[in-house]
Amino acid sequence: MPHPDSPFLAVPGQPFDLSDRPTAMDAFESRSEAKAVARSCGEDIAELAHKLYALSEPKLLIVLQGIDTAGKNGTTKALFRQTPPLNVRVAPFKAPTKPELAHDFLWRVHKVVPGQGEIAVFNRSHYEDVLVVKVREIADAETVEQRYGQINDFERLLAETGTTILKFMLHISRDVQGERLRARLEDPGKRWKFNPGDLDDRALWDDYMDAYETMVRRTSTEHAPWYVIPSDDKKTRNALIAQIVHQALEDMDLHYPDPGYRPDDYDI
Amino acid sequence: MPHPDSPFLAVPGQPFDLSDRPTAMDAFESRSEAKAVARSCGEDIAELAHKLYALSEPKLLIVLQGIDTAGKNGTTKALFRQTPPLNVRVAPFKAPTKPELAHDFLWRVHKVVPGQGEIAVFNRSHYEDVLVVKVREIADAETVEQRYGQINDFERLLAETGTTILKFMLHISRDVQGERLRARLEDPGKRWKFNPGDLDDRALWDDYMDAYETMVRRTSTEHAPWYVIPSDDKKTRNALIAQIVHQALEDMDLHYPDPGYRPDDYDI
Repeated sequence: MPHPDSPFLAVPGQPFDLSDRPTAMDAFESRSEAKAVARSCGEDIAELAHKLYALSEPKLLIVLQGIDTAGKNGTTKALFRQTPPLNVRVAPFKAPTKPELAHDFLWRVHKVVPGQGEIAVFNRSHYEDVLVVKVREIADAETVEQRYGQINDFERLLAETGTTILKFMLHISRDVQGERLRARLEDPGKRWKFNPGDLDDRALWDDYMDAYETMVRRTSTEHAPWYVIPSDDKKTRNALIAQIVHQALEDMDLHYPDPGYRPDDYDI
Repeated sequence: MPHPDSPFLAVPGQPFDLSDRPTAMDAFESRSEAKAVARSCGEDIAELAHKLYALSEPKLLIVLQGIDTAGKNGTTKALFRQTPPLNVRVAPFKAPTKPELAHDFLWRVHKVVPGQGEIAVFNRSHYEDVLVVKVREIADAETVEQRYGQINDFERLLAETGTTILKFMLHISRDVQGERLRARLEDPGKRWKFNPGDLDDRALWDDYMDAYETMVRRTSTEHAPWYVIPSDDKKTRNALIAQIVHQALEDMDLHYPDPGYRPDDYDI
């Protein structure tokens, strides 16, 4: 269930224009305040994730989408910096393999959705099938058009069977992407992240933004809402997303289960 | 390659008696010293894990085995408390499902071994097939006997194809297990971990220790050595294992790869 008050929510059924959504925002008093918020939420997320693990019933799916350098890995780190990996799993989606292409586009996705007591983070996702696939015309327009409905149906299945779904579009400006790509080239510790192919996508910036806009319009639903997060500043991005994830976990009413055993019942 | 100097190593090819291996040891000056060591190793592990991710070539498999309450989850938390989940994955092994039983016992294991750039932690493992399965006679003795060799062959395949394998037996005393089981019953925050079935296993303590001893004897190899860790004290256990994992990562000579791109080559 989305929080209708969040200014970052793309309200299901309402008009959505990406141009109304800022890539930068003074959401916190300072960057150090944002950092403190992310850290504090991170502590709470760790505790709640452990209760989710103990309950072994609810499931949480976090989808991170954004253009290259938008900060998908950085967000994952910030969210789960304090959470041990017991029940948190990152599923990265790269170009599909031949066996994956031999199936429908949701086949490989279904295999890695969270199970009971699990949190799965999708680094990219099935949404690439209406983003890069659309922009680069890897599939025809009719196929892409069908996918919005197929995705909504698939996510409804997950939601109806106990999965809380949170989808984040990490929204950055073209200038900031340029800075980050240059930083990757300049810093020997980051150079491994640079991929010349990212420049080809950068050249198609407007087409990508159109595809993102359509994606949010067509697939922000009550059961799986999109949040469009101003992500030019990393600390602001981390704090805003951590707040939403934290709130979603709070709403799940997590607690350590009591199996009913008592010390007096056993002689150990 | 195991570190032959480690007093915790079960040296491949050497006689091994579990009774020679302590469950408690003053390995550090104090418990707070042990905690500091685990923390410091944890920081280094986080940094090295990120380089392993960046290189996207080496693979690390950590197997955690131990009787109930030995501390498999606690060890996982301590090792990776500071490492984000980007490339760290925990694979818990529970009682096999029907489809898993319809295959050889390594089938479900093979599916979750680490890929390039990944660290997998096995919480229990294929070794249950020579532990609980042996003690409770779920398979016949001949089948169990075959498995030691099958495991060694399987692990050699993994090692020869780029996987560093570290196996830890978390060695606790029967008394400490009793304390921990009682603590689980008494603490409402831990009661969900209690399973009356654990008491049935506890009644078979000596049989389990025999099975563990045989397991270590038969499967501590150059390519996949066992370390038997005194685990009565959690902080000592965490620090000792963190040191070995840290050293293993150091030995992998990890670094951020340089793809050869330079800032001047691109106009961004």
